[in-house]
Amino acid sequence: MRKIDEIARTYSGLQKKMCGILESADGKGKFVSHTWKKAIGSGESLLLENGKIIEKGAVNFSFVKGKFSSKMEQLLGEKASEYAATGISSILHPVNPWVPIIHMNVRYFALDNGVSWFGGGIDLTPHIIVPEDAVAFHHRLKTICDQTDPEFYEVFKNWADDYFYLPHRSETRGVGGIFFDRIKPGRQNSFENLLNFTINLASVYPEIYAHLMHKYGTKPFSEREKKWQNLRRGRYVEFNLIYDRGTRFGLESGGNTESILASLPADASWAYHYSPEPGGFEEQTLLLLKKDIDWIRFEEKNRAAISK
Amino acid sequence: MRKIDEIARTYSGLQKKMCGILESADGKGKFVSHTWKKAIGSGESLLLENGKIIEKGAVNFSFVKGKFSSKMEQLLGEKASEYAATGISSILHPVNPWVPIIHMNVRYFALDNGVSWFGGGIDLTPHIIVPEDAVAFHHRLKTICDQTDPEFYEVFKNWADDYFYLPHRSETRGVGGIFFDRIKPGRQNSFENLLNFTINLASVYPEIYAHLMHKYGTKPFSEREKKWQNLRRGRYVEFNLIYDRGTRFGLESGGNTESILASLPADASWAYHYSPEPGGFEEQTLLLLKKDIDWIRFEEKNRAAISK
Repeated sequence: MRKIDEIARTYSGLQKKMCGILESADGKGKFVSHTWKKAIGSGESLLLENGKIIEKGAVNFSFVKGKFSSKMEQLLGEKASEYAATGISSILHPVNPWVPIIHMNVRYFALDNGVSWFGGGIDLTPHIIVPEDAVAFHHRLKTICDQTDPEFYEVFKNWADDYFYLPHRSETRGVGGIFFDRIKPGRQNSFENLLNFTINLASVYPEIYAHLMHKYGTKPFSEREKKWQNLRRGRYVEFNLIYDRGTRFGLESGGNTESILASLPADASWAYHYSPEPGGFEEQTLLLLKKDIDWIRFEEKNRAAISK
Repeated sequence: MRKIDEIARTYSGLQKKMCGILESADGKGKFVSHTWKKAIGSGESLLLENGKIIEKGAVNFSFVKGKFSSKMEQLLGEKASEYAATGISSILHPVNPWVPIIHMNVRYFALDNGVSWFGGGIDLTPHIIVPEDAVAFHHRLKTICDQTDPEFYEVFKNWADDYFYLPHRSETRGVGGIFFDRIKPGRQNSFENLLNFTINLASVYPEIYAHLMHKYGTKPFSEREKKWQNLRRGRYVEFNLIYDRGTRFGLESGGNTESILASLPADASWAYHYSPEPGGFEEQTLLLLKKDIDWIRFEEKNRAAISK
């Protein structure tokens, strides 16, 4: 388990770098460090509130160790005595409804029996979906995936569609992205390749967001967009508290509550039987909150549909 | 299972009566009916938005039937082929931070093997705890309990303390109340007694709330109280989405999402590492969000402590 100490150092370094890029894109907000130490391990949450563009954002690093319980054995189908895990996870909530919510996570999990794996992903949740941004986002992720393994993007994209889904609302959380878990080093991908893949994701994440902050951070918006943003944030809260495995596992295993729930927005709202105005941006967005949208070929397909 | 049809009619009648009392206490808001029919059964949600005192309130009635699955068998330790269940549940969120959030639920569950039981409760979640109101609330509940069974209050009060608890925050949802489940008719309490107990609870519920609406509905408040109210509502959302068994069971069993999540407030907020001003009402409230406060003897004890 020597390797994991090195990975933890690498991830912790990436966390700081990421926050530097986000701070300079924001121009006002500063990340404040909160370190924590519990029986399970330790971590550092870098939290930004009331920035110019980021309203509430967290970049969490943690490094935990513990007994590999019989519940974990059952859940993961592995036999071991102890586990160690390290990772970075981040969620950023913007002020402006035109800037999407973004989420990123990379993590490494190691057992004392020698088995280890990587997991993570990046997904985008626009309050108002602008198809060209979803297309560009998926192209960017595909490029990063292809550098490591040409099979990754398709598999991880579908995985994200399935994972970031609210069955009780029959809608996806946003336009998806990539999600992967328990990818073990082996014949197909070496440990170095997989580690570099997670480093690439953590490196591209603040760049992707800085671009969207720059594009929409000062776009004018009205009460209508703001109201809609808060309703969409309500759905984000529903996903995180009802379904997100990281959140539930974290709370159940005695993780640091403030860091785990740092993913929640500053404000959220709920309305009874909301129904969007026909043809408005709200309805357009709801129509695109679906699994299995092929964002890579979305423009071609739309052009083909129009030219018919 | 003939009886359950009658109980459903009784509960449905109580739902309407309850809404009448709440509407006249509000003086402006009107409950709007939304009926639903799904594979699992049917129901009626009476929903009020933007009242003078109630900002968002729901009184739901439902009557569902289904196969008694092996998962339910395991969970409930009963063998049966089919179940039927009917109940009313209500949550009311006020505009004014001085008016508490309130919740009530009564339900009857019957199996086709002849076994049946009642469940339910009422609990109060003040944004700002005023001890004398918590004391009066618990006295009122104790009186109702004592009319049916002198053992009920103590058992059901402790049950509520355990149930309405957020372990990840180490705090109770509010000042508690009573909670009970799987109380079967038998030697100790006849079917009629238990049914009447649930009818009494559903009848006293709008009266208790009308009193609090009247007492605090027009009390002046500042931005500080409103901000605190939204943070407390955030905790209410956390409880309902992470722990509430009714919510989780409802969403998992394919219930009506809009009715189930009608419990969520119009707005809620979250802040990083909130710490209350020493001596303020926020800190006073946090100090009282604890299990095992003996609200019935609270005044005596406080007086005794002061006179020492």
